[in-house]
Amino acid sequence: MHNDTASQDQPGLAELLRRGDLFAEKCPSREVLKHVTSRWGVLLLVALLDGTHRFSDLRRKVNGISEKMLAQTLQWLESDGFVERISYPVVPPHVEYRLTPLGEEIGRKVEALADWIEVKLPEILAAQRQR
Amino acid sequence: MHNDTASQDQPGLAELLRRGDLFAEKCPSREVLKHVTSRWGVLLLVALLDGTHRFSDLRRKVNGISEKMLAQTLQWLESDGFVERISYPVVPPHVEYRLTPLGEEIGRKVEALADWIEVKLPEILAAQRQR
Repeated sequence: MHNDTASQDQPGLAELLRRGDLFAEKCPSREVLKHVTSRWGVLLLVALLDGTHRFSDLRRKVNGISEKMLAQTLQWLESDGFVERISYPVVPPHVEYRLTPLGEEIGRKVEALADWIEVKLPEILAAQRQR
Repeated sequence: MHNDTASQDQPGLAELLRRGDLFAEKCPSREVLKHVTSRWGVLLLVALLDGTHRFSDLRRKVNGISEKMLAQTLQWLESDGFVERISYPVVPPHVEYRLTPLGEEIGRKVEALADWIEVKLPEILAAQRQR
């Protein structure tokens, strides 16, 4: 991450793939970061840490998310390998979502950040008011 | 965070201020989350963990950021109390940026997430290719 040489010399894709470099403009890690730190990405990862959910459960839990954004964000997280979509062959269709092991790992990191913000919010708001 | 009752009952602002609730649509913690997890917010927090920087240093370090986005993101982080702007009364003007103690705390959480993504990138890309 703090490899300044790497980000200035624009390493080849092969080098990037061995280890991501968020400071390098074209590194694919930036896209992953975008998915998991989007407002809804954060909330969905944290919600899914509680276990398997149906689409409608997630919609209820994540206050304010639209159906469109929920579907889009789940698709991002699925394509990064963080969320698994389980479709049961029943009528009416029954689909569930759960974290993969990789998704659970990143979910914990995101949760640590989210928890910190929630706990420190009074201090942050106090800092904002002092300005 | 997992206080479902709180997010469904729409608690008053006083309750929100005692502890943030990211699952509640109107909680100000969502704005803070947006600032620190924006692409440039993440990279600036991590860059500033290395110490005090001038504007031009940050511009160089964070590959691809525009002057406008750098100024905007620094302003967000400053208004949340995470970044301190130090202006020296000299000619030509000399301005430096550094993390506050609160900024250093959140910077470490963000760094843990960023590091994880960089290290796991090969696994994530492999998951993407399998789809």
